[in-house]
Amino acid sequence: MRLSRAFQPTLKENPAEAQIVSHRLMLRAGLVRQTASGIYAWLPAGLRVLRNIAQIVREEQDRVGAQEVLMPTLQSAELWKRSGRYDAYGPEMLRLVDRHERDLLYGPTNEEMITDILGSSVRSYKDLPQTLYQIQWKFRDEVRPRFGVMRGREFLMKDAYSFDVDYDGAVQSYRRMMLAYMRTFRRLGVAAIPMVADTGPIGGDLSHEFIILAPTGESGVFFDAGYEEMDWVGEAVDVEDPAALAAFYDRVTTLYAATDEKHDISAWDALAPDRRREGRGIEVGHIFYFGTKYTKSMDISVAGPDGAALHPEMGSYGIGVSRLVGAIIEASHDEAGIKWPVGVAPWKAALLNLKPGDAACDAICNDIYARHGEDLLYDDRPDRAGVKFADADLMGHPFQLIVGPRGAAAGTVELKRRADGTREELPLAEALARVFGA
Amino acid sequence: MRLSRAFQPTLKENPAEAQIVSHRLMLRAGLVRQTASGIYAWLPAGLRVLRNIAQIVREEQDRVGAQEVLMPTLQSAELWKRSGRYDAYGPEMLRLVDRHERDLLYGPTNEEMITDILGSSVRSYKDLPQTLYQIQWKFRDEVRPRFGVMRGREFLMKDAYSFDVDYDGAVQSYRRMMLAYMRTFRRLGVAAIPMVADTGPIGGDLSHEFIILAPTGESGVFFDAGYEEMDWVGEAVDVEDPAALAAFYDRVTTLYAATDEKHDISAWDALAPDRRREGRGIEVGHIFYFGTKYTKSMDISVAGPDGAALHPEMGSYGIGVSRLVGAIIEASHDEAGIKWPVGVAPWKAALLNLKPGDAACDAICNDIYARHGEDLLYDDRPDRAGVKFADADLMGHPFQLIVGPRGAAAGTVELKRRADGTREELPLAEALARVFGA
Repeated sequence: MRLSRAFQPTLKENPAEAQIVSHRLMLRAGLVRQTASGIYAWLPAGLRVLRNIAQIVREEQDRVGAQEVLMPTLQSAELWKRSGRYDAYGPEMLRLVDRHERDLLYGPTNEEMITDILGSSVRSYKDLPQTLYQIQWKFRDEVRPRFGVMRGREFLMKDAYSFDVDYDGAVQSYRRMMLAYMRTFRRLGVAAIPMVADTGPIGGDLSHEFIILAPTGESGVFFDAGYEEMDWVGEAVDVEDPAALAAFYDRVTTLYAATDEKHDISAWDALAPDRRREGRGIEVGHIFYFGTKYTKSMDISVAGPDGAALHPEMGSYGIGVSRLVGAIIEASHDEAGIKWPVGVAPWKAALLNLKPGDAACDAICNDIYARHGEDLLYDDRPDRAGVKFADADLMGHPFQLIVGPRGAAAGTVELKRRADGTREELPLAEALARVFGA
Repeated sequence: MRLSRAFQPTLKENPAEAQIVSHRLMLRAGLVRQTASGIYAWLPAGLRVLRNIAQIVREEQDRVGAQEVLMPTLQSAELWKRSGRYDAYGPEMLRLVDRHERDLLYGPTNEEMITDILGSSVRSYKDLPQTLYQIQWKFRDEVRPRFGVMRGREFLMKDAYSFDVDYDGAVQSYRRMMLAYMRTFRRLGVAAIPMVADTGPIGGDLSHEFIILAPTGESGVFFDAGYEEMDWVGEAVDVEDPAALAAFYDRVTTLYAATDEKHDISAWDALAPDRRREGRGIEVGHIFYFGTKYTKSMDISVAGPDGAALHPEMGSYGIGVSRLVGAIIEASHDEAGIKWPVGVAPWKAALLNLKPGDAACDAICNDIYARHGEDLLYDDRPDRAGVKFADADLMGHPFQLIVGPRGAAAGTVELKRRADGTREELPLAEALARVFGA
């Protein structure tokens, strides 16, 4: 994309309404615009990040055998009356009435709907297990929306739901999802630690939340240094092998890790002092096992091996996709702006033409743009170099390809790596290979 | 995907509530489930079709220079009060109130919001032209939702909005979008004819709707046979060249074409009888030019070349993405089920193992599945061949790779082409090359 034509409005000043750094940077870098309290529109660069995150989430869900569906944003109140949650859910649930005076609500979560869909689609224990997921907009009517997309009202979430014939199967599904989550966060370029959690309004017996480490995080966190050295990704784990899943699960959940709410001082004191790590963190995912809570209350069953009806055992598994955009920025930025991990960056690189109109600069830039235009943002504006450097640092492209008259004459470009600020003067081909691969 | 594990619930019986063939087939093939009146959940196969359509729409929008954004589903009523449409819009607009008693609405369209975003982001005529689009869920509270996703209440739409400094620029934007639409529908595997239309509640001076021909369509249509022979796609058209755009636009809009509402008997009578074509059709897109209607009413302006404020000229451009799923089925099916065009099919092929458990059949099927598992649905169920044939025809895969014991022994498979029902016994490699390319 050529920046001279891009809808890419950056702001020089810090917006007064933004209290935290990710919110400030998202507004300044032109990723989002607020359209109502806690409700945001995604501009092109922000949408590219959001879609990159969603795609990584999707691929890792698919990889452990989850199947994607898409449920509507609006739900019938009838469904929630069947589970008993319609009256129990607080004012965060946005309730509305259609032209025929029927009660609807904007889904804050989808346990009821997916349970109903499953119940009308499968009849036998042979049709299970199933894990279904969606990536869809949700609404929670927060009383004080703040921190930009970190605590917005309309937000994008990946929510998955597993259905198994018995407890053992449900545990396998839970562990598979743990594996998918660890792989997902690693691919997103962040460290997320699973911590035992309360089950809250979803209900249930077993739950972990996933916390990204960020100095500006909302919660204090305490964890064992072993998490810093761990193989999180489990590339070799066969998701069909219960023993391999159990070994992976034990590895990532056995060491001490807790938010301040659940901090256990005696367990902490038992840890060798040089293994103690303290910090702050942001919750970006939450998984639950809750057995037959919904299948029983909604009376959803399948025929078991003996012919008798059985209520499937369920779990649900969330990732805050839009929240992650803010959380990644909290975890990865400096004074100058965002530092995008390569996997989620809107563009892999900025191409900075320091002297548009100079024949050699234009020729090299046009050549690079013709080859890699999809993956880079070409700053072809007639502005000063300082403006271009500042905008590229603000927007956080992992690489900057800097083309000036002197290098252009010599056939070289400067390659800046945003993560550590290093700069190198390189022959064109080598610089491109570093950024885009050979 | 292995069908034995897929969440792919097909129905043998015709659902009583479905009045039209696309609705019946979408329910029977397990593409969607109704969750409330006029509101649908998309099951895995249906979602794959929906995303394939959305991706083609996206690529063709990008190709003419439109940039993708994503606006929220809920909008502030304040925005619509500024344009004057809040009171004018009828009961199809779903209005709601949040916990702080602020008026919101579920967006039926986004002219107000995008105009406001543009106004807060650009300052100068140099920042224009811009065409922004999104693919997002909308809601229209139809008094009688029916025909499945063809007239649902929550529906997925591509809506684009162009902003130009003057009328000539706006015409270029309109023509570029005409080109994108013709390319889009052709890639979707359907013939859509542009017809002059009324501008309706969007308002404006110039408008076309795009009608897919289908014998079960909602409107009668009358058109010149020239549309049957036309180069719709304009591969060679340079979108930056006004003369090339004008020539393309004239070619696709000059011949006679009208729905029964706008049918002009005298123009029809002037056409040579052998050039007259009559049929039925379904509206799947609608484009509008309406000048400064919103930029004036909402007082959005940029500084012009002379420094004076100017109100940008606008157009808006819709494609019914979820509606297209139904419309394509209306245009492409037979008694046995759906016939998906290759570009939108959930899977390119079904792989039918006629004798699971037979070593030769299993070996060939596993080999094919290992190589092309992403692009095919492997029917590995222990069912009769007749059940497999019926489900594959119902689901409408463009190809069926049929593996039986006799062929397996000889190293051949049967390839059935769903479009015309032809079957051929082919060596394995040749069959795969026909389906997946060399």
